[in-house]
Amino acid sequence: MNGKIDLNCDMGESFGAYRIGMDEAVMPYITSANIACGWHAGDPVVMDRTVKMAAKYDINLGAHPGYPDLMGFGRRKINLTPEEVHKYVVYQIGALQAFTKINGGHLSHVKPHGGLYHYALENDDIARSIGKAIVSVDPDLYYVSMAGKKTDEMKDIGKELGLKIVYEAFPDRAYNTDGTLVSRNKAGAVISNPEEVVERALSIAKDMRIRSINGEYVFLEAQTICVHGDTKGAVHLVKHIREALEAESINVIPI
Amino acid sequence: MNGKIDLNCDMGESFGAYRIGMDEAVMPYITSANIACGWHAGDPVVMDRTVKMAAKYDINLGAHPGYPDLMGFGRRKINLTPEEVHKYVVYQIGALQAFTKINGGHLSHVKPHGGLYHYALENDDIARSIGKAIVSVDPDLYYVSMAGKKTDEMKDIGKELGLKIVYEAFPDRAYNTDGTLVSRNKAGAVISNPEEVVERALSIAKDMRIRSINGEYVFLEAQTICVHGDTKGAVHLVKHIREALEAESINVIPI
Amino acid sequence: MNGKIDLNCDMGESFGAYRIGMDEAVMPYITSANIACGWHAGDPVVMDRTVKMAAKYDINLGAHPGYPDLMGFGRRKINLTPEEVHKYVVYQIGALQAFTKINGGHLSHVKPHGGLYHYALENDDIARSIGKAIVSVDPDLYYVSMAGKKTDEMKDIGKELGLKIVYEAFPDRAYNTDGTLVSRNKAGAVISNPEEVVERALSIAKDMRIRSINGEYVFLEAQTICVHGDTKGAVHLVKHIREALEAESINVIPI
Amino acid sequence: MNGKIDLNCDMGESFGAYRIGMDEAVMPYITSANIACGWHAGDPVVMDRTVKMAAKYDINLGAHPGYPDLMGFGRRKINLTPEEVHKYVVYQIGALQAFTKINGGHLSHVKPHGGLYHYALENDDIARSIGKAIVSVDPDLYYVSMAGKKTDEMKDIGKELGLKIVYEAFPDRAYNTDGTLVSRNKAGAVISNPEEVVERALSIAKDMRIRSINGEYVFLEAQTICVHGDTKGAVHLVKHIREALEAESINVIPI
Repeated sequence: MNGKIDLNCDMGESFGAYRIGMDEAVMPYITSANIACGWHAGDPVVMDRTVKMAAKYDINLGAHPGYPDLMGFGRRKINLTPEEVHKYVVYQIGALQAFTKINGGHLSHVKPHGGLYHYALENDDIARSIGKAIVSVDPDLYYVSMAGKKTDEMKDIGKELGLKIVYEAFPDRAYNTDGTLVSRNKAGAVISNPEEVVERALSIAKDMRIRSINGEYVFLEAQTICVHGDTKGAVHLVKHIREALEAESINVIPI
Repeated sequence: MNGKIDLNCDMGESFGAYRIGMDEAVMPYITSANIACGWHAGDPVVMDRTVKMAAKYDINLGAHPGYPDLMGFGRRKINLTPEEVHKYVVYQIGALQAFTKINGGHLSHVKPHGGLYHYALENDDIARSIGKAIVSVDPDLYYVSMAGKKTDEMKDIGKELGLKIVYEAFPDRAYNTDGTLVSRNKAGAVISNPEEVVERALSIAKDMRIRSINGEYVFLEAQTICVHGDTKGAVHLVKHIREALEAESINVIPI
Repeated sequence: MNGKIDLNCDMGESFGAYRIGMDEAVMPYITSANIACGWHAGDPVVMDRTVKMAAKYDINLGAHPGYPDLMGFGRRKINLTPEEVHKYVVYQIGALQAFTKINGGHLSHVKPHGGLYHYALENDDIARSIGKAIVSVDPDLYYVSMAGKKTDEMKDIGKELGLKIVYEAFPDRAYNTDGTLVSRNKAGAVISNPEEVVERALSIAKDMRIRSINGEYVFLEAQTICVHGDTKGAVHLVKHIREALEAESINVIPI
Repeated sequence: MNGKIDLNCDMGESFGAYRIGMDEAVMPYITSANIACGWHAGDPVVMDRTVKMAAKYDINLGAHPGYPDLMGFGRRKINLTPEEVHKYVVYQIGALQAFTKINGGHLSHVKPHGGLYHYALENDDIARSIGKAIVSVDPDLYYVSMAGKKTDEMKDIGKELGLKIVYEAFPDRAYNTDGTLVSRNKAGAVISNPEEVVERALSIAKDMRIRSINGEYVFLEAQTICVHGDTKGAVHLVKHIREALEAESINVIPI
């Protein structure tokens, strides 16, 4: 049993006149904010506001670098070279770091966004490029990757690079027995029943496992749970998850 | 008499498949490189390459933040608020800083680019926003502004913010008697005769003055001279300026 | 008395994952849709969806070209040359035209967006560039400009270019006695009382005049009234305006 | 034997202050210009200038739509949906069409650029989306695809959609025996000997075949040959190809 868990949530995804996310509403319940860096979402004004807000709630800050594709919100795979990924991630971490410098928050981690996150899971050279970017800018930053199938390869990359990695789990996503996520275009891929999501979050935090879509248990060594803050319902669910964890004496603290 | 002078040049203005500037050719002759930060020009791959190159030649590095307007190369005035300018400059300094961190160069200054540079010269609130951005990210960084008319106001802003400022002069541009540049759409605004440019550079470095378009001398308290590296001719001219300065025992060193 | 009026509304301002506007809700009450063309807002998927929707409601379609500034939503003045404005508007009209071609709607007008709209009101060369773009692409398209102070100059430009122009009024904005809008940063610039807005719309449509912020009447020769569809309240207000106009036997029809 | 051939070349790839291509120099020797539409390259000012130039030389105009990726020059695969590709291509054709309208040239074809061109060759749904976009905007426009392996599938798609297709060959690229191009990262993929390129162009135009990298002949039913205009050497080679074709009484004319 773990005894403690981090709750991370994507933040600062508004852009100019456009609003996405209920950042201020979800802040009180999470412990880590992954902040968009102006490429797939976010802009400097939004980044500054989000860092200030997170500093106020004393939440850990993470850079959330993504593809240079605002029109696709960073979700569409772009066939970047490892070299390009390395530079793009360095750039975005640096940009966010400047806002933590002027506002006083604590930058603790880097979690690649959307398509870039998945590109790294399917291609070790991309994972390595992101890892290299992190270590070269600041070796104290954690790389947030996915618990489950890829964990072993990531541990090897971590050792190779001197990179600290934490693994996250998704209580609202169905898992295959091999520890991968059930593809979004399959039935049952997303768990919409709040009670079930809460129960799965507890199972991850307490027992380091989750029931797969076939009914078997999958081992998940996760130090952090990914939650969402896009809608009122989502924010309510995060609150619910946090309360359920604390009711079971799980310590909800930053990594 | 000054005894020493810095030679600064805009660098890293290529973007993706597009090339601008003869960076490698001009590097041996300058002492400070102003590096585009991906907004008006430059991209992370170019920034990384340019910082590496400057580190190799042991040149001072500067952030060269600009308007978010690649299509206009940052030259067209955009009516940003001081608040927006502040955040945009913080973002761009941070992004460049990350590349100096991973490549080992020395970040010494910030020089706003093109339209943003001129916006600051005509509007104290914009100058103050840029100054605030610099001081908040790193108070050791110099703000490079223009020697001439605006110097007094800038010194006041510098004192107010605890901001270090250096002033630059343009040997290839004609000056009005009040210390402003002759507008580019007037005849004689740009000095194209290399010998004359060299002579004016000497006049700036040795005697802190330049002959105005009306023939009178204008006092210019400049610690750095701005040169260009866009063409073979331009690079040749920079070499010529450097040699002429050294022949007069002017110490050509970074700020 | 006019007897008829058009109601125009900005539409298709969503972008990628970002949503702005309640387009479908407002469509039944308006007669002209100004559709963003992918520069200050909108993208090809949004443009296609919006044109389809407008065609379904049999509404007139207009191109709503803007500055190349998604981050500023096209509201910040960019100091473009008349030449640049000309090409940028041609580009955006052409892009929208293609979607009317494939979906069968009727393109009737061009209304510049935000900062570009105001740039044209303050600078005849910019208005002329927009007019030239319209006439050269399709001389049957109307230019939507502002009723009030600038009308005479616009009529001259219209004659000069063979350009058809219509003028619009803003029932929810306060007017100065000279027919200009009261600046947004002054108290009372925006009328928030729905009843008052409806009454002002009636005054424009029936009597071609509006009471200025000083209480005097301003003559407004407007063929179209600009309404908004950003919020539930805004949509409700548009419905209210339309019903009030029809109750007074004003024919609410496209230009 | 064919008796006639078209020479097509990518054009209008400059952007803002950035220059790519020797458009004016290559124009006299080609018969079709593929003009970038502002996404992977080009901007409205460049598009206008390029269309004017092509009209002057009485060359056929084509839209050259690409990925929304200026930083990657449209070369990196982006995993767009067929739906997105459809709308993106409609948008770009429309934008270019407006410039042919105001300048009087003849729009004859659409050739997808770089990564999008290859995406269509590997995925029929993407090819179909591009084809649908073309037919819906203007069924008289030709789709320029690649002669060789994919030709049969494309002919089927053409029949299905009522789409006119022409096929192009690359005299400066090595072919595999199955009619595909030898991958650029293999030795010998690009033919650099000008004499050999000219000879291969003749072989394509006269005998509809090309010798593969293994020495066997590959049948290539090509109505157009793709040439380049990036460098002085490239322009010289185009001139050489044209003269060689005409010396053999091949009629070099637009499609």
